Amino acid sequence: MNKIGVLGAGTWGTALSILLSDNGHDVTLWTKLEKEAKALEESRDNLKNLPGAKLPEDVKITLDLKEVCTDKDLIVMAVASPYVRATAKEASPYIKEGQIIVNVSKGIEEKTLLTLADVIREEIPQADIAVMSGPSHAEEVSRRIPTTIVVGSSSKKTAQFIQDIFMNEVFRVYTSPDMIGIELGAALKNVIALAAGIIDGLGMGDNTKAALMTRGIAEISRLGIKMGGCMETFAGLSGIGDLFVTCTSRHSRNRQAGYLIGKGLTLDEVIKEVNQVVEGVNTAKAALALAKKYDVEMPIVEQINLVLFEGKSPLDAATDLLVRDKRPEYKTLQWD
Amino acid sequence: MNKIGVLGAGTWGTALSILLSDNGHDVTLWTKLEKEAKALEESRDNLKNLPGAKLPEDVKITLDLKEVCTDKDLIVMAVASPYVRATAKEASPYIKEGQIIVNVSKGIEEKTLLTLADVIREEIPQADIAVMSGPSHAEEVSRRIPTTIVVGSSSKKTAQFIQDIFMNEVFRVYTSPDMIGIELGAALKNVIALAAGIIDGLGMGDNTKAALMTRGIAEISRLGIKMGGCMETFAGLSGIGDLFVTCTSRHSRNRQAGYLIGKGLTLDEVIKEVNQVVEGVNTAKAALALAKKYDVEMPIVEQINLVLFEGKSPLDAATDLLVRDKRPEYKTLQWD
Repeated sequence: MNKIGVLGAGTWGTALSILLSDNGHDVTLWTKLEKEAKALEESRDNLKNLPGAKLPEDVKITLDLKEVCTDKDLIVMAVASPYVRATAKEASPYIKEGQIIVNVSKGIEEKTLLTLADVIREEIPQADIAVMSGPSHAEEVSRRIPTTIVVGSSSKKTAQFIQDIFMNEVFRVYTSPDMIGIELGAALKNVIALAAGIIDGLGMGDNTKAALMTRGIAEISRLGIKMGGCMETFAGLSGIGDLFVTCTSRHSRNRQAGYLIGKGLTLDEVIKEVNQVVEGVNTAKAALALAKKYDVEMPIVEQINLVLFEGKSPLDAATDLLVRDKRPEYKTLQWD
Repeated sequence: MNKIGVLGAGTWGTALSILLSDNGHDVTLWTKLEKEAKALEESRDNLKNLPGAKLPEDVKITLDLKEVCTDKDLIVMAVASPYVRATAKEASPYIKEGQIIVNVSKGIEEKTLLTLADVIREEIPQADIAVMSGPSHAEEVSRRIPTTIVVGSSSKKTAQFIQDIFMNEVFRVYTSPDMIGIELGAALKNVIALAAGIIDGLGMGDNTKAALMTRGIAEISRLGIKMGGCMETFAGLSGIGDLFVTCTSRHSRNRQAGYLIGKGLTLDEVIKEVNQVVEGVNTAKAALALAKKYDVEMPIVEQINLVLFEGKSPLDAATDLLVRDKRPEYKTLQWD
């Protein structure tokens, strides 16, 4: 049994708290919002965003950041991406030297273009930061549906420690040294999921969506490899695996937001309708900035930015993506 | 305008005939079956397996193999995989030296473990064989839904010739030198689609299916690279692209067959129910034999063979796939 603090009581933080408690650990779940804490306490059997799941009585819910951070074997960082820096900064005074923290949020900080692990490292330099990602909708994890995921850390020992804590017969954890690859795949796939939703909203077909997803992972890989990630990672659970699930699943907010845009709603209307954080919208701008910084061609990212922020019609964007020159599938694969 | 002969009047051969005729070519469509030819002639406006599509009047339908093979700029081979060798053998006397043939069928010959292009090359050694594959359900292509595909040939000139013939504003054709990679991706993904269908039939979730698809393309890539294919191809349209569409689409017979197996039907019952060729069933055996021949670990292919041919329960197979040792995601990615 380990003592674990989970920061962030959204659907993912809550689902992981259930899993960790099932695994026999001592779990403390923190939220900044009094209303959220109260709602969780009152509806452990009837969670709003996790139908069919139950938050065990022995998961402590707290509003006290010091309590959730002190004397823990592992801290799980599960706050929505826009709040990661502020939360890390606030938590830092309570974090001991060498504290293992695993970040499970997905995104890229728009202003700095840093991954969230790097943001946390800036605010809590004394900690040992790892990441965990993969095709893992919270709704399914909380209902014990078989799920796989990958933990990335620069230390093999840390990766295996986290693997041991999370793994059970329905939650398979793999390990990897490629932190940056895992984080980039996780963050950038949300932009492609928005685009896939648009394709659905426009009433185009499965062929079109598969083409978009394939070209999408290709542009994510191009950028990710330039930033130091490994090709294998983008072909793995946190790359195509997460892309599969996000672009096709009924649970994905990013896909849903794209779908509504494809149907003709404006971004403001969509954000109101979805009523939760749509990470892909924030990440789209950051991805475009990264494409420019690293001089990588990312046509889908470009078009999605034009649609989201410049008023381009989704149909025109889709058409511009399709009507391009005749070309080889990969410039790297050529006849001698 | 080019003169094109299409061999095989199943859904894919018919859909491609419609496309080629739309592109202004002179198309002759051959079937061996008098009944099929008659049905096509009588229902050009109301095709059984291509709802909403229309086979233009100027597409000639013929039962004469000599006619479809003679004096053509391009021959399209679109017969179901079990009939490819016999059809190629019968056609060979009518095929001129250097005739360009593009194979669009998917499969591996069980007895010889050859790809279909190699089967055709054995029977028609005088021809210049190419392949074409990608996420392209016939039902959508025939309705002009935007689709992408890749043509593979050992000759750049041949690949570009075929690209020019098929390409239009809703059918984007890429070129590649990696014939073997394209054919293996196309054939083997049907086995993974069967497995994905089983996951659906068992009532497991999107997380589980995404994990299976990710590990599935990983084992296809391992085998394919050993057989001479390129990593990029398995990450491309004929690899993950075709896998996306086959594992998630309402149109896929392989997924549908797997779904029924997951629901508890036997293989015989499923074949009766689906009532069309389920390529993945034939390919599953060949894939297992290839895994042994090339000494490649293919756990999903192994389990699917046990389910299809040895009476193992789908749930036990899925469980055995999930409950494996703690391990890194890729053996090739290790800490220093």
